[in-house]
Amino acid sequence: MVDSDVPGAVCPIPISRYPEVQMAHGGGGRLTDQLIEEMFVPAFGNAALGDRHDGARLDFGGVRLAFSTDSYVVKPLFFPGGDIGALAVNGTVNDLAMCGARPRFLSCGFIIEEGLPMETLWRVVASMRRAADAAGVTIVTGDTKVVDRGKGDGVYVNTAGVGVLEHARVIAPGQVRLGDAILLSGDLGRHGMAVMAAREGLEFESAIESDCAPLARPALALLEAGLDVHCMRDLTRGGLASAMVEIATASRLHLHLDESAIPVREDVRGACEVLGFDPCYVANEGRFALMVAPADADRALAILREHDVSQGAVRVGDVTDRHPGLVTLRSRIGATRVMDMLSGEQLPRIC
Amino acid sequence: MVDSDVPGAVCPIPISRYPEVQMAHGGGGRLTDQLIEEMFVPAFGNAALGDRHDGARLDFGGVRLAFSTDSYVVKPLFFPGGDIGALAVNGTVNDLAMCGARPRFLSCGFIIEEGLPMETLWRVVASMRRAADAAGVTIVTGDTKVVDRGKGDGVYVNTAGVGVLEHARVIAPGQVRLGDAILLSGDLGRHGMAVMAAREGLEFESAIESDCAPLARPALALLEAGLDVHCMRDLTRGGLASAMVEIATASRLHLHLDESAIPVREDVRGACEVLGFDPCYVANEGRFALMVAPADADRALAILREHDVSQGAVRVGDVTDRHPGLVTLRSRIGATRVMDMLSGEQLPRIC
Repeated sequence: MVDSDVPGAVCPIPISRYPEVQMAHGGGGRLTDQLIEEMFVPAFGNAALGDRHDGARLDFGGVRLAFSTDSYVVKPLFFPGGDIGALAVNGTVNDLAMCGARPRFLSCGFIIEEGLPMETLWRVVASMRRAADAAGVTIVTGDTKVVDRGKGDGVYVNTAGVGVLEHARVIAPGQVRLGDAILLSGDLGRHGMAVMAAREGLEFESAIESDCAPLARPALALLEAGLDVHCMRDLTRGGLASAMVEIATASRLHLHLDESAIPVREDVRGACEVLGFDPCYVANEGRFALMVAPADADRALAILREHDVSQGAVRVGDVTDRHPGLVTLRSRIGATRVMDMLSGEQLPRIC
Repeated sequence: MVDSDVPGAVCPIPISRYPEVQMAHGGGGRLTDQLIEEMFVPAFGNAALGDRHDGARLDFGGVRLAFSTDSYVVKPLFFPGGDIGALAVNGTVNDLAMCGARPRFLSCGFIIEEGLPMETLWRVVASMRRAADAAGVTIVTGDTKVVDRGKGDGVYVNTAGVGVLEHARVIAPGQVRLGDAILLSGDLGRHGMAVMAAREGLEFESAIESDCAPLARPALALLEAGLDVHCMRDLTRGGLASAMVEIATASRLHLHLDESAIPVREDVRGACEVLGFDPCYVANEGRFALMVAPADADRALAILREHDVSQGAVRVGDVTDRHPGLVTLRSRIGATRVMDMLSGEQLPRIC
């Protein structure tokens, strides 16, 4: 699978411009993209990483698996609607589901800061177990490291996951086709706003809870129904906008979205306005977008709406060839603008 | 696979005694053991974790895989003979190899502290690629998070790995049999002393280099030769002693070691004496111990010695039933003592 040369001595990121890693390099926007495209993909040299998908596909003589990992550094550890433990399980479960795989097994690596209350660790561990049960996965292997006081922030959690691809289809950004309908599984922005409110001690009129949830059931239901699903993507760091830009770039097609069709709760919209955020860029942990053949769009929506976690599913746009590689958004007042990736760090440590 | 109840509200670790997580909880000794046995195994509730093996075995309709993870928080990031990148690849490769699996695919999760020099990240990434090539594995999926300055320590790396079990045998602590020979693949203590010397700025007469290396080739060569290998274990945190105690506990057999047979380089022994460490407790990153049927011991040694990384292989002890569950060491002067697990934190952040 190795298809590039061994890396040389010269750092591929222009050091004169980026001498140090910045918060934005982990934000899921343009600098994260640069790090992946210019450093990790060439250095690790394999096609799977270049796919820019949520996980890798592994083939073992007919048994096809998906494999994915994420580290979680959310601050604070507990927030309305979730915590770092539930996030660490659901995040990796969702990455596997977005590959079209049935999530099965997780690993779990804790990096704990010396002095973390034992009770806090227990709350995280217990939450992981509940989330694993809810998602139908088992945590089968793990590791614990402890770092000195002041060299961590309570606890960081890594999970890696293995899921089974029970069909021969490839669900990936490169599979998106001209004419596809773009569907969204529910309202945007709740996770990001819930975490920000908890972190900053803000109080909004109504409590905003994270949408943190496992997405495997609705995602697999679409495939089991035989629908012509081409790509699925959960809308975490960087939100809907960054996910769409990545897919437009990978597919070399034009993704056109209709802002008035994108559901955002009124309290979330209000919080975003107060804090100066665009809901299309805010992280979600229980929402996904998908591209499906137009003839299957209505059936897909009907199936999604049968599941609690995606009962608010709507069609939000279409795939065209008018502006290859671009994402455009028609605003509520009818103007159309290009959606770009996040260029700075909007919401640090949101997941 | 779930075989325990959902965890309750009460923390299973006695909080009056351990109100906070201590450095020793990550040291690979008694407190790490307590955390695994009393918190993680019951909470995550599955047999695989309870095995206390380096990885989990997964069965997908005839395709048998091993799955393992480790986070790496070594300090400093670079040390004679290795760095955090090589360690992160070899550590997980070795965990898979110790399950008897052929390591194939790795995931990689970076947790980077804001302000890390970009050049440093590149050195780590380039080292990971070289180590992956040397070990015959591919890094197929990854994740990058950035945490605020002062909330990390340069970079922490998690790897998870998937390997293939190409045989029907189970290589695990529970497979150890009465009469087995205990073999050791080479000299002890180099990794721990190399890292300590680099961290403390110590200078020994000769530079001690880490033994950091991939162990899959010798480990698999033993299995391919059809030898009756029962258990293999790499000797990382907690060293030979802690690994032996874990295996004695799991197998309910007595492991008896002969100190005079255990190779330790003179410079390493000297450094250990200066710093007050016992080489049997010092971490290695390129050494393993194995239990093999006595009739196959000599052939196993011959095969190990064909590989550079295990050319110093020796027989160091035997499995008996005299003191079930215990490890004893006959010292150079002929006295026999019980080897226990590390009870405190001997060498923090060694891997």
